[in-house]
Amino acid sequence: MIYFDNAATTWPKPEEVYRAVEDAMRNFGGNPGRSGHRMALAAARLVYEARETLAEFFNAESPTNIVFTMNATDALNTAIKGVLKPGDHVITTSMEHNSVARPIFALTKSGVEWDIVRCGTDGSLDPDDVVKAIKPNTRLIAITHASNVTGTIMPVGEIGKIARERGILLLVDAAQSAGVLDIDVQGMNIDLLAFPGHKGLYGPQGTGGLYVREGLQLTPIRQGGTGSFSEELEQPEILPDRLECGTLNTPGIAGLAAGVDFVKKKGLKNIRYHEEQLTQRFLEGLKEIDGVTVYGPEKAADRCAVISLNFNNLDSAELAYLLDSRFDIQVRPGLHCSPLAHRTLGTEDRGTVRFSFSVFNTVEEIDRALEALREISLSSR
Amino acid sequence: MIYFDNAATTWPKPEEVYRAVEDAMRNFGGNPGRSGHRMALAAARLVYEARETLAEFFNAESPTNIVFTMNATDALNTAIKGVLKPGDHVITTSMEHNSVARPIFALTKSGVEWDIVRCGTDGSLDPDDVVKAIKPNTRLIAITHASNVTGTIMPVGEIGKIARERGILLLVDAAQSAGVLDIDVQGMNIDLLAFPGHKGLYGPQGTGGLYVREGLQLTPIRQGGTGSFSEELEQPEILPDRLECGTLNTPGIAGLAAGVDFVKKKGLKNIRYHEEQLTQRFLEGLKEIDGVTVYGPEKAADRCAVISLNFNNLDSAELAYLLDSRFDIQVRPGLHCSPLAHRTLGTEDRGTVRFSFSVFNTVEEIDRALEALREISLSSR
Repeated sequence: MIYFDNAATTWPKPEEVYRAVEDAMRNFGGNPGRSGHRMALAAARLVYEARETLAEFFNAESPTNIVFTMNATDALNTAIKGVLKPGDHVITTSMEHNSVARPIFALTKSGVEWDIVRCGTDGSLDPDDVVKAIKPNTRLIAITHASNVTGTIMPVGEIGKIARERGILLLVDAAQSAGVLDIDVQGMNIDLLAFPGHKGLYGPQGTGGLYVREGLQLTPIRQGGTGSFSEELEQPEILPDRLECGTLNTPGIAGLAAGVDFVKKKGLKNIRYHEEQLTQRFLEGLKEIDGVTVYGPEKAADRCAVISLNFNNLDSAELAYLLDSRFDIQVRPGLHCSPLAHRTLGTEDRGTVRFSFSVFNTVEEIDRALEALREISLSSR
Repeated sequence: MIYFDNAATTWPKPEEVYRAVEDAMRNFGGNPGRSGHRMALAAARLVYEARETLAEFFNAESPTNIVFTMNATDALNTAIKGVLKPGDHVITTSMEHNSVARPIFALTKSGVEWDIVRCGTDGSLDPDDVVKAIKPNTRLIAITHASNVTGTIMPVGEIGKIARERGILLLVDAAQSAGVLDIDVQGMNIDLLAFPGHKGLYGPQGTGGLYVREGLQLTPIRQGGTGSFSEELEQPEILPDRLECGTLNTPGIAGLAAGVDFVKKKGLKNIRYHEEQLTQRFLEGLKEIDGVTVYGPEKAADRCAVISLNFNNLDSAELAYLLDSRFDIQVRPGLHCSPLAHRTLGTEDRGTVRFSFSVFNTVEEIDRALEALREISLSSR
């Protein structure tokens, strides 16, 4: 089987991740932060070390600026609803995932204003268009770091400068970039960074997090027990307790920390280089196949390892089915939960077929996929 | 080591649970509901079967009435904020956990009215007091099924009748009861049931869920990608998609399903009998130890396997530390995230030391704990 659906969730995970999850369940089974006995403390330590690992990875001010969530969507909701109030204005791009678009759309019903900056047909964003969209009441710019449909890398550093100069908050959706592109939240002026644990960081599903800039106070979407300030009915003000409540996913977090350690060990640059090579090879191969339309930037350097394409007039689901059933290649067809992006590409009617690679994919797999597409092309003449 | 902190999270988990989590990570690593390829479908099937297992376990109308959440706190927030609007009135007991009290307290700032029905000093609730608290604008009654401090079992069946007759919604917090007490959501007129996955259901941490009665439409606290109706910016109306977004904790859910299967196989009645026996033995033994004050109902039949106590004038944290360091017994001191309950018991100043048992605890462990307390009692004279 060739697994090319890594933009949805990476698979396989490193062996260390499987082992860390099991070890946490078997040997660190206490409830972190909920008691002083040894197994609860051991679990709390494990969670704290994971915070340290992630804080260092993203260059956060301190481990307490990392909040663990259920997934990136939960993190994005926490960020968006944590800062936007009725009367506030928010700017996004036209390449956003529904995990950004749907929470903002919900807020527009209670008086939040939303402007969508149109990207190019390859998904690229012109920072000047963001500047033009800014209004006196703009509170937040929310952008994806890399499109989940075309892989297009957004100019986050430039947008960060624009936002910081004007006192506007910047939320970055790192769903496709965390673990692949270099992210320095302080250096890039990122106020809020939402990341999944189970994609490029190679943690298990059910993990994710939100970096919150030091001093930024969010209104929580959830309240509950934190194991701290228990006598107060008010949710604690300190981070991460303000935004974390109830029992954490300790085994998942252990797995996520092991995943980040794996990425650090491999080296972000090496991972990126490998994935870029695969992407470049695939893009070049696709050029030689009749009937293929590729979306997104031409050069692999301008995108993550995510390639969307269509094939003559074939329905995207049909092509994906052919690849799965005849060639054992697993890809994802359709809209990828990103209707705005598909409108930008002009593919809202049939979607696209998305190929997405991880560090575990190989040149041989790329070549087999190209071969499969060539065969489909020939047989469909 | 003797682990008596099962009310925080059960440990150990059954072997089947560890294996199910690992199997899901290694062999069902696709993103459920996010594509049509075989591994994504296998993951989706695994999640659907877990829904079926839980729906049958709680006698829900259908698997789609089970919504997976991060933990019970997340489920309680989803329920409470999903139904209460400004101007609505909500009734709780004085034994609620902060996972109920804090979200409601947050809503009082935007015009939700809240009345707390005072329980007896053993934590018991008189249904007549609930009736007296009902007002024309009462929209919700939210009660715990069993106190996490004293184990006191609440008359949920009676409250269910009272609520249903008056068209008021009933939310039950099953944090301590799921997997121990019989829960039939239809038979007990429960509209919303929040449950953790990692306590009496023996799933891993990071799991929980919310049962939502058929036809009850909640306002979601989160929006995002669902893999369904992707072209719409409006969160889908169908369950569970309306309340679930982003990637689910597939390995955790696999483990939770294995945990519920374990409970079914053991038999809820047998589990309850075992835990009741342990509780009764512990309660009887405690009577013979000088200086111990036990809180909650006298009879084990009136409580879950949760016992709170204090010891002369000893601080609860100090007693817990002694038990851990000298006798390798792990318990939880303090307020247990339930200040309202401790105010009801009159223990808000120093909290209590909580012992809580699971199906894996033994009579021998109970006797060793009693022996330890006896030694502490003798040495503190």
